[in-house]
Amino acid sequence: MVDDLTLYELAAADPALRFSPHCWKTRMALAHKGLEADLVPWRFTDKEAIAISGQERVPVLVHDGVAVSDSWHIAVHLEEWFPDRPSLFGGEGTVPPVRFINHWSDTALLPAVARLMVVDIHDRVHDTDRRYYRTSRERALGATLEEVAADRPANLAAVRRVLQPLRLALTKHAFLAGSAPAYADYCVFGALMFARCISSVELLEPDDPVFAWRDRLLDVFDGMARSAPTFQSWP
Amino acid sequence: MVDDLTLYELAAADPALRFSPHCWKTRMALAHKGLEADLVPWRFTDKEAIAISGQERVPVLVHDGVAVSDSWHIAVHLEEWFPDRPSLFGGEGTVPPVRFINHWSDTALLPAVARLMVVDIHDRVHDTDRRYYRTSRERALGATLEEVAADRPANLAAVRRVLQPLRLALTKHAFLAGSAPAYADYCVFGALMFARCISSVELLEPDDPVFAWRDRLLDVFDGMARSAPTFQSWP
Repeated sequence: MVDDLTLYELAAADPALRFSPHCWKTRMALAHKGLEADLVPWRFTDKEAIAISGQERVPVLVHDGVAVSDSWHIAVHLEEWFPDRPSLFGGEGTVPPVRFINHWSDTALLPAVARLMVVDIHDRVHDTDRRYYRTSRERALGATLEEVAADRPANLAAVRRVLQPLRLALTKHAFLAGSAPAYADYCVFGALMFARCISSVELLEPDDPVFAWRDRLLDVFDGMARSAPTFQSWP
Repeated sequence: MVDDLTLYELAAADPALRFSPHCWKTRMALAHKGLEADLVPWRFTDKEAIAISGQERVPVLVHDGVAVSDSWHIAVHLEEWFPDRPSLFGGEGTVPPVRFINHWSDTALLPAVARLMVVDIHDRVHDTDRRYYRTSRERALGATLEEVAADRPANLAAVRRVLQPLRLALTKHAFLAGSAPAYADYCVFGALMFARCISSVELLEPDDPVFAWRDRLLDVFDGMARSAPTFQSWP
């Protein structure tokens, strides 16, 4: 029996443009496991569509009728349900440190990246999401989107500074997981795919080891991430 | 045959006061392996004493006449030489993500902690080290030690913000390594032992999960870290 998998993903005005960092973590995890899912575009205000998950955020993976939300829980779910496919963690003892890396990505890297993206996101989400996006984010950030995005050089320097532990880790291994990529990489890569999809801001210098690492991840799974639609495909 | 192990550790004016975060990583790693080393106090200006290591920083572990420097390399060395003793990493696949955590500890956590400590360190190192410490650190920080330490509430808030991924990771597991402590924990704990030994500044709120985690690590190995001399033992 083939598993029935549906993934709800945050979409921009152009439904082909999927830019959520957390949804990208899940896309990479599914590809790592060699699984295909029905990819359904979702908008911030579509609370109804994912009501089955009992919460209001994507990614939501519906697996044979059962909804799993939160990208970390989805990764753990995939590892448990598909133990014979390539491991996302590489062993039980690796789960706790990778969980730390996931939290670092979400609480240190992603907020720094997002400061550079807020105006681009606002301009590229669907009309029905625009007011929701501005109101919720300006409340969270305590400033207007334009104020947050104003000092681009400082915001960019902050991202590059935050990336320092990743940069140093990559002096020894090709991937955060070691010689081959796994969830330790995908949970960080999601934040960079977010930037690539929604904005023209280049976060990295070409000679940054993180740049080469991102390139390697854009290439895996037959270039799945590299060929994904970006803001440039939107008029 | 018993292995001959000597660890050179940074000491304050009181030679019993060992406050280096990196030396603490090594102390915990040795205890984890159940190894005893001869602990030799070292001062910033004692370059001669560790010349055997071919560099100028501690920790330096001399193992049967061979010097290993850098706390990370020492941990890897101990794991390789004592494979039958409790594992510091818990498996080969865990080494790369723990390496990331070590870099995070050194490049994100430690600089934030150090801003709170610079004046205390200056006041508590040996007379012969004081000028060296002020000159080298003020050059690195681009400000006087007093200027760096001046805004204590902001410096404290920065440390607590940086600790967020650790805080979140500890909602699921008792230790960064999982249910029992290992090098993932020690490489972060070192930065907190540094603060405990050299300064009266309390970095953490009592209801912070990081506070409880630090307590658990102070207790392991029969309370080795808890019973270590702190600045309070210095007149």
